[in-house]
Amino acid sequence: MQRKSFGSMPCPVARSLERVGEWWSMLILRDALHGFTRFDQFQKSLGIAPNMLARRLNALVEADLLERRRYSEHPPRDEYVLTARGRDFRPVIVALLAFGNKHFAPEGASVLLVDARTGREADPVLVDRVSGQPIEEPDYVYVPGPAAGERTRRKFAPAAGKHEPVARMERKRNPGRTLPHSAIAREDGHKRPNALDAGYKRRRTK
Amino acid sequence: MQRKSFGSMPCPVARSLERVGEWWSMLILRDALHGFTRFDQFQKSLGIAPNMLARRLNALVEADLLERRRYSEHPPRDEYVLTARGRDFRPVIVALLAFGNKHFAPEGASVLLVDARTGREADPVLVDRVSGQPIEEPDYVYVPGPAAGERTRRKFAPAAGKHEPVARMERKRNPGRTLPHSAIAREDGHKRPNALDAGYKRRRTK
Repeated sequence: MQRKSFGSMPCPVARSLERVGEWWSMLILRDALHGFTRFDQFQKSLGIAPNMLARRLNALVEADLLERRRYSEHPPRDEYVLTARGRDFRPVIVALLAFGNKHFAPEGASVLLVDARTGREADPVLVDRVSGQPIEEPDYVYVPGPAAGERTRRKFAPAAGKHEPVARMERKRNPGRTLPHSAIAREDGHKRPNALDAGYKRRRTK
Repeated sequence: MQRKSFGSMPCPVARSLERVGEWWSMLILRDALHGFTRFDQFQKSLGIAPNMLARRLNALVEADLLERRRYSEHPPRDEYVLTARGRDFRPVIVALLAFGNKHFAPEGASVLLVDARTGREADPVLVDRVSGQPIEEPDYVYVPGPAAGERTRRKFAPAAGKHEPVARMERKRNPGRTLPHSAIAREDGHKRPNALDAGYKRRRTK
């Protein structure tokens, strides 16, 4: 089944998902982050058909997550090495690992992440480098960014408006932003504002 | 296309991916973590066909990531609320957001994660709660866990063996573990050991 492309969505989560392609790509990145580089290694690890694996590797090279490097001329053989962008995907995989170990390993963990310097099991937690605090509800919220279109603004503005410090920074980041209906209608293809507008004070322009 | 099930793989990353189902499920969880609960909200946000959305919501309820709650009897209407397990998925979404903002937002960020107490943009980083250190290469490595089968052990043992503190803890965690060939063959369906065995000293049993 051909799925809808997420690449044109403004959401950074959707765009990331578009680039990592599908499950196999995530598992290939998982193995690459573990240190695998060769076609054989990926294939044995994943039990995936060679043509499917070749397609996924090509897509990851095109998305600049892996880099193809020739390691043998006779016979010609390439290996696949993580790019800087590919290495930046590591927190996603580690977060999935922690989630899976906590919720989907009733028989105990099959894979552990450990501190190489001590051998002790790690307990991954996402913190804010700015404040040092764990990123948890309700202390962290999503707000429209500088490149947000009107649709994204409508979606995230209500949550942002609930917190005065956030609203204050918002006004500083986006002085004088308004939400003309025409722009909304153009961007999301709907003729009329929808339920998502609740909580956001709109200005009628016609 | 029917994809292979990842649920039977021992890897916690694969199992997590099996449960969140596919891209739509990730985006539904993204929206649920943003505070959406109603069918209409998800549908408007995702632009997804109602029957597809209903299927994905059902799968997320079955996986205990969302809980269905009746909020109106006349007409009968349900909403979908994150379970504790669903809320635990948040780090994965935040990691995807940070990755997407860094790599796939050439025009600037559309969505920002901010500290609700200060309004300042957060910089999410994954740290080890035990050591307080960022989880980065080469300081953190994967090792086979207590429930690892022989195939998983073979895959992760070489990396684990490179670090003496890790190897020491490994021996403590799994005293007397060996890798008989018969078990390897049984578990991964291959008749013979493969390239992944490189670096792991095997003991022949026949």
